[in-house]
Amino acid sequence: MAAPFIWRHRVAFGDCDPARIAYTGRLADFALDALDAFWDDLLDGKGWYHMNVHQGFGMPFVHMEYDFTAPVRPGEILECRVWPEAVGKSSVALIVEGWQTGRDCFAARFVSVFADLAHMRKMPVSAAIRGALEARFPGLSSNAAPMARRPDGVRPFSIAARDRG
Amino acid sequence: MAAPFIWRHRVAFGDCDPARIAYTGRLADFALDALDAFWDDLLDGKGWYHMNVHQGFGMPFVHMEYDFTAPVRPGEILECRVWPEAVGKSSVALIVEGWQTGRDCFAARFVSVFADLAHMRKMPVSAAIRGALEARFPGLSSNAAPMARRPDGVRPFSIAARDRG
Amino acid sequence: MAAPFIWRHRVAFGDCDPARIAYTGRLADFALDALDAFWDDLLDGKGWYHMNVHQGFGMPFVHMEYDFTAPVRPGEILECRVWPEAVGKSSVALIVEGWQTGRDCFAARFVSVFADLAHMRKMPVSAAIRGALEARFPGLSSNAAPMARRPDGVRPFSIAARDRG
Amino acid sequence: MAAPFIWRHRVAFGDCDPARIAYTGRLADFALDALDAFWDDLLDGKGWYHMNVHQGFGMPFVHMEYDFTAPVRPGEILECRVWPEAVGKSSVALIVEGWQTGRDCFAARFVSVFADLAHMRKMPVSAAIRGALEARFPGLSSNAAPMARRPDGVRPFSIAARDRG
Repeated sequence: MAAPFIWRHRVAFGDCDPARIAYTGRLADFALDALDAFWDDLLDGKGWYHMNVHQGFGMPFVHMEYDFTAPVRPGEILECRVWPEAVGKSSVALIVEGWQTGRDCFAARFVSVFADLAHMRKMPVSAAIRGALEARFPGLSSNAAPMARRPDGVRPFSIAARDRG
Repeated sequence: MAAPFIWRHRVAFGDCDPARIAYTGRLADFALDALDAFWDDLLDGKGWYHMNVHQGFGMPFVHMEYDFTAPVRPGEILECRVWPEAVGKSSVALIVEGWQTGRDCFAARFVSVFADLAHMRKMPVSAAIRGALEARFPGLSSNAAPMARRPDGVRPFSIAARDRG
Repeated sequence: MAAPFIWRHRVAFGDCDPARIAYTGRLADFALDALDAFWDDLLDGKGWYHMNVHQGFGMPFVHMEYDFTAPVRPGEILECRVWPEAVGKSSVALIVEGWQTGRDCFAARFVSVFADLAHMRKMPVSAAIRGALEARFPGLSSNAAPMARRPDGVRPFSIAARDRG
Repeated sequence: MAAPFIWRHRVAFGDCDPARIAYTGRLADFALDALDAFWDDLLDGKGWYHMNVHQGFGMPFVHMEYDFTAPVRPGEILECRVWPEAVGKSSVALIVEGWQTGRDCFAARFVSVFADLAHMRKMPVSAAIRGALEARFPGLSSNAAPMARRPDGVRPFSIAARDRG
């Protein structure tokens, strides 16, 4: 597979919390900013903003997950590497991995569904977007829908059996 | 199980993005703020801040995941419901569910590991914290470690086989 | 003058920085969120979001300033009090004062200009908005334009004489 | 005077609001991140984080103000230029100017007071910091205290005469 897209950010004082490492909420932002930059780069500036404002569709998230393995430290560059895991009929899964100075800090996975903003209905991945993904990532899997759920069909956590008081 | 803890936030203009719904990064913040308030409430003000600043330990996240089912709208209250899923020897899993005006917007699951800040090593859940959890949530599972991984031992996504360029 | 509008927020762990008090950037957000809530309250839900998305105009800031007098502490409620200082032909100035547990933490002043989004030109304050302000704040000054500049016409800081490299 | 320090940021989708330009609260963050990077650069990594965590002092803001002249657009680089306006006995004033593609977007001015964290009292600017400022900015004024107030001694806005309900 092709080399991933790389996004860089100097971790600031204001990105850190009273534990004196980057705040978890800011790590979520970093991965999202890396994805935003990935799409603008892949689609020649026609990423999230252009889709939503000028093209009448968006790609809202249906799922995201993060595994954290090392703290992200202030004053250093965080590098996020982005690449697609799979593209389905109307959805796409991407991986973002964050690291500093050669060690992995976190890995995250995102599933988005393309949606027509006028009718708020899911829509097929456009030929232009599928083509751009496949051109840059030749080995990209496209014969299975990215999943927000476990293969066994069970939601990753149960929200059925609790008292909503 | 007892009623969950409830945290409320009026979704502001500044929480929203050019798609004119609450930004995914802000949803991550909301769930985290709800967890922060949960611990302060459960532990009489001795939550994240007090742990890290006055008690010499913290509870960093090793995993978090979100499923999004409906957009979060500005100008309305977002209500987050928080409750523990399981408590293990040194870790705890919590669920946060966000909804507005009676419909579910997202559900999230968080796994934290208690860590001694002096040695940056994991440590057992304190008796005080375990006791507070079990007192408020009598049916809470404590015989299985919360998992950041699938039961089959496979990481939720593979980061092994790519070119790091 | 009428009692100010009050906005409340529990200051969270994630609002704080490595100095272990609320981060200056978050204080900026709090004051802005208080303003957003003020307008939605004053205009029956037709505040910033509704103006920009449904009414074809906005009220971008031309100036904001903050004086900080005491740190904002986590785990406590921050209360922001909002009231208008003056309303001019096409602009309005508002004051936001933040305090916790009876002591002042900061005071901020904001000047916004109403702008027609189609032509990106300033426009008069609508009769509905002027009327709503004057009805709630009977003593409100309306015979002088809110100023983003000092009365002597000098910008508050000079940006003329430096080398832009 | 020497060329200013330059900080750069690609403005992301998530930095923007429903008006589809960068949110005012994010502009505040950008200027603060630029200041943080300025100090780390000037002091060889001993900026805000190092001061607060390792050196027992900080430099909290007593005042900040922003003038906004043009919207900050997504997908483009925002460049912030930072330089000191004046250094006093225990305080310092800095200017941050933000621009995109050759046009000015905002200018901001910040006044910080150096403070001993143990006693929460103001302290003189250290010789090391004063020396670093004067070495890089030879024409820097140091014979007048930076002011958070107008020269006539009047606060920039009155908070005296309102009803606190």
